[in-house]
This record gives sequence, structure tokens and C-alpha cells, in this order.
Amino acid sequence: MTRIAVDAMGGDRGAAEIVAGALQARADGIEPVLVGAPGLDTRGLELIEAPEVIEMHEKPAEAVRAKPRSSLVVANRLVAEGEADAVVSAGNTGAMLAAGLLEIRRLPGVMRPAIAVVLPSRYGASVLIDAGANADGRAEHLVQFAHMGSVFAEEILERRNPQVRLLSIGEEDEKGNQLTLEAHQLLRESHLNFAGNAEARDLLRFAADVVVCDGFTGNIALKLLEGTIKELLDALRQEITATPLGKLGGFLIRPAARRLRTRLDPDTYGGAYLLGLRGLSVIAHGNSSSAAISNAIRLAARGVEHRVVDRLAERLPDRVASARPT
Amino acid sequence: MTRIAVDAMGGDRGAAEIVAGALQARADGIEPVLVGAPGLDTRGLELIEAPEVIEMHEKPAEAVRAKPRSSLVVANRLVAEGEADAVVSAGNTGAMLAAGLLEIRRLPGVMRPAIAVVLPSRYGASVLIDAGANADGRAEHLVQFAHMGSVFAEEILERRNPQVRLLSIGEEDEKGNQLTLEAHQLLRESHLNFAGNAEARDLLRFAADVVVCDGFTGNIALKLLEGTIKELLDALRQEITATPLGKLGGFLIRPAARRLRTRLDPDTYGGAYLLGLRGLSVIAHGNSSSAAISNAIRLAARGVEHRVVDRLAERLPDRVASARPT
Repeated sequence: MTRIAVDAMGGDRGAAEIVAGALQARADGIEPVLVGAPGLDTRGLELIEAPEVIEMHEKPAEAVRAKPRSSLVVANRLVAEGEADAVVSAGNTGAMLAAGLLEIRRLPGVMRPAIAVVLPSRYGASVLIDAGANADGRAEHLVQFAHMGSVFAEEILERRNPQVRLLSIGEEDEKGNQLTLEAHQLLRESHLNFAGNAEARDLLRFAADVVVCDGFTGNIALKLLEGTIKELLDALRQEITATPLGKLGGFLIRPAARRLRTRLDPDTYGGAYLLGLRGLSVIAHGNSSSAAISNAIRLAARGVEHRVVDRLAERLPDRVASARPT
Repeated sequence: MTRIAVDAMGGDRGAAEIVAGALQARADGIEPVLVGAPGLDTRGLELIEAPEVIEMHEKPAEAVRAKPRSSLVVANRLVAEGEADAVVSAGNTGAMLAAGLLEIRRLPGVMRPAIAVVLPSRYGASVLIDAGANADGRAEHLVQFAHMGSVFAEEILERRNPQVRLLSIGEEDEKGNQLTLEAHQLLRESHLNFAGNAEARDLLRFAADVVVCDGFTGNIALKLLEGTIKELLDALRQEITATPLGKLGGFLIRPAARRLRTRLDPDTYGGAYLLGLRGLSVIAHGNSSSAAISNAIRLAARGVEHRVVDRLAERLPDRVASARPT
């Protein structure tokens, strides 16, 4: 039985939504364990009590230190102590990173944990890493991210020898900033299946199995994708409903629009892996629905089943010659 | 009469498309001057002969040095020598930057020229600067970009006291990488109407009159916007045409889709300003249609009419205390 610690107090929609998601995920060898306020109605699921809550706006490192009995920190601690196989939270992303570093700790040889998200596309899903764990980074970090992304692509997306590209401002090798030019060189020298730079315009059309970048760029890219998709669909709806014929047309294309929305829905995977720790951590969107929470729990369970953490531990130290703790 | 030097050999669609665009723009005091191969059919417009061509894939700095008689370099030189009031090219962006630096040269006090593009949105256009002139940058550069973007917003978008935001990974002041954290501080201390950070998810929904960022981030953001809009509309069309009822619906919403496409069309402005030089330079998209070229020429003429270069020259030296040539 895979036990997944679920932070019941994280997320914008309240604990009841998260409990509902956990209930949906319970099945087929998955046992969600809720971590939340004493007396929380868990509808029959196991509750580990945690009297404190870390809010979305709190400063991550300070909050994690100041609230050791918060649901988010306790959920991470359950993984560190072997009481759970993975942790899921829709709470403060920075706090998940800080709590992961403090409680679960880094795998040996890992310089920086990174966030790996799945980008949907018509031509297959790809992994974007780092999507925002590290605002600043060095070229060696990006090489480690590429290795971690490759393990993700192998185990979760079932790609053999996944192709890696570096997000930059031109496909030519000499296009980029100092960081990407240096990382490009290191990636060329690595054992990875590195295919050169990827351009941002191809991100939603499948640029590679793994697209690697620093966390600042990755976070900008991810939020821009989400914002643009939402704004474009909203703007189209506005234009369509401006005329009666448009409204009729809008009614007729509704199934098509729904299929597209589903395909691009970030809730399909439910969350992002925080990779590089001694245990598995899944960060869900702050406004996750119960369906998204349920998918995030399944994503965590899939990572446990595929031994993603062990695979990273086996792979990173020998592959990254320059690995050193920072 | 405003004379605009137009690189007839730049762009992916051939000289005839550019000549057609120049013809469309000729009017109301605008006189396009074509720079291109001897014997080019300019349909009655003035031709300045340039026997060489810089191709899209050439390395910018090398190409500009090796081909002083190329259409792109000669067009820049016309501005430097006062023979034209501005230059427009749909050719190699890096070469436009290199030729601008070499021929037109920087305004006193300007550390780095920057590319300013107009982002369309339902709630008003905004300026993104730097959209890709500088792959690496320092915080002081970003402050200059913000000043240049503000002049653009005042003169071209007619905003009074334009609001400036810094593109980062969170709205909170303390969110960002080293570069943006430092730039944030300098922007706070400046005389600009600085309103804090902007998030990438709001770029297409009007984040501010001026959104400032380094050229790597700006180029990633711009290409991601373009690619996502295109991919999303393509994917929607594919879904709609998958069923007969969807096809009918698609027919009925066609006017709405066309209105949306027009609003988001990068050709509406036709090009981007390269700001910070002693003359005005407009860079058009490589695959510009004649309509886009025509709009780019009008954009250049508008900048001349509004004395954008003089306004920058007046404003930059006293506003930027730390200005020093690099």
C-alpha cells in the first residue's frame, strides 16, 4: 500500500476540496493520509493532526522555521520519517521547497532540487525543468536538471533515451545568454541525448522530451503559457458571444473547445514533481480542484511505483562529475 | 517629407513583397527609399543601390563588418548620414543591432540599445522592453530600458506618466532572481512611475504601460506568446473540423475568430523599435507581409514625427545617474 501524505490545509479552495480529492484518489493500492487541523472531517480517511497552517503569502523559509507543526511541514516530515512514501500539497510552493530541503533533504550529489512540470501538446507531452524552484542557477545546475528531467521522462512519460533540449533564444548553438551558452557546452559533453537549443515558440508544439532551463525562465514560461491559454480562450468566447450567429456557432463548437481545454488543462497531471530530494514531493496548483488533487496524488503514487527517487539516486552521482554541494 | 530607408533585401518573402509594402506606406508625407540590388524593380520609388545581402543565418557582427555594402548596412548608413530619418528592415535582427551600433551609434549616456515591442491586449497595448537586443544585462541597463520604454509609451501609445512594471516570478517585491531584485530596488529609487513586479501570466491582459525585462527573458516571452497563440488557434481549428457540426459552428464563428486574430496580429504594429541609437531603427518580423512592412514604415514615420530619438536624448542623461558607457 502506497501511503501519500496530503496537506489538507494547503490550496485556495479549502480543506473540504482536498479531502474530496484524496477520497477520489483512494483505490488500487493508494492510501492518502491527510495532514490537517485537529477535528477535520476526513470522511473516513486517516488524519495526522497538525495545528498550524502556512499561508500562501508567507515568506517560505521563515514560515517553515516558525511553524514546525504546520500541515505542510508535518506532511514533509512523514516522508522523511518513512511514515509516508510521498507528499502532496497545493500550498505555498516556496514553503514546499524549504520544508523539503529541511525535512526530506537532498539526495547525495544533488546541488539544487528542481520543479518538473508536464507540458501538454498535440504531439506528445514534454517535461519542463526547472519550472521555478531556483530563481538563480549555474550551468552545472542545469545539467543536473537535465538528468533529473530525463529520469522523469523515462519513468513517468515512458520515453526511451529521452531527447533533451535547452530553452534559449535561438536554435543555433551560439544563441543564448552566458548561462545557457555555458550550459549548452556542458550538455554537449554529457552522456545525455542532447539535441541543442529549443525556442520558446515551440514549447506548446513539443520541443523535446525534456526542456531544461533555469527556474526564473521556466517559471516565466510556465505562467505565460497558462495566462495566454486562459486569456485567448476568454477573448475568443467574448468575440463569439458578440453576435447571435456567433453564439450559435459557439454552441456548435462547444465539444471541440472542451476537448481542447481538457488537453491543455494543467489539472490533467495535477501537479509538478519537486525532484532531487530523498523522498518524493508533488506540488499542486494553488487553486486545485478535487480532481486536480486526486490526479496529483496519483502522480505521486506513480512516482513511488516507478522508484523515481531511487532512479535519481543511482543516476546522478556517477553522471555528474562536477557535482558538489552548494 | 519624412524619408524612411527600407532594406528591400531583408525578410523571408523576397524584395517584391517589401516593395509592395513600401508603396502602400507612401503617402501623407512619408517617402520610402528602397535600398537593394542594382536594377531592382521599385515600381517608381527611389532606389539606393547596395550590391550585397546579409542572410538571416549569418553571424551578425561578422556579417556587418564583412558586408559594408549590404542593403541592411547601407540603409543604416543613410540614417547616420542624414539621408534618411529612420531605417526599416525585416532582415537579420542581430545584424540590425550591430549595424545600428556601428553606423548610427548610441545616444550619449545609453549603455545598451534595447528592442521595444507592442503587446496587444483586450485592455490596451503595452510596451515590452527589452525584447531581445541584449542576451545578458545588468540592473542599470534595465532601468535605462524602463526610461526608453516610458518615452515610447508617452509618444507612440500616448500615455501620460506611463506605469512601469518589472517582469518577474511573483508580484511581491522580494520575488525574483538576482538581476530583477537589484533592478527592482533601482526602479523604486528612480523617478519612473514604477508599480512593482508584473507576472508573466498577465502579459496578454495588460500588465502595465511598460513591462521591463532583460533581453533573454523578453525574447523568450515574446516568442512564447507568438507560438502559443498560433498553436492554440491551430489546435482549435483542428478540433472544430473533426466533426460536421463542429465544421458548421466553425463557419459561424469565423468572423469572431478573424476579429481575435486581427487584434493579436503582430503585423498590426509591423515592427519593433530598436531604441537608444542616434537615429530611429525599426525591426520587422522576418516573414513580414507587405501589410506588415507598410505598418513598420508608418511606425518609423510616427517615431520621427514624435521626435522619439530627441526625447530619449533629452531624458536619459539626467535621469540615469549611473549612466556610463560599457
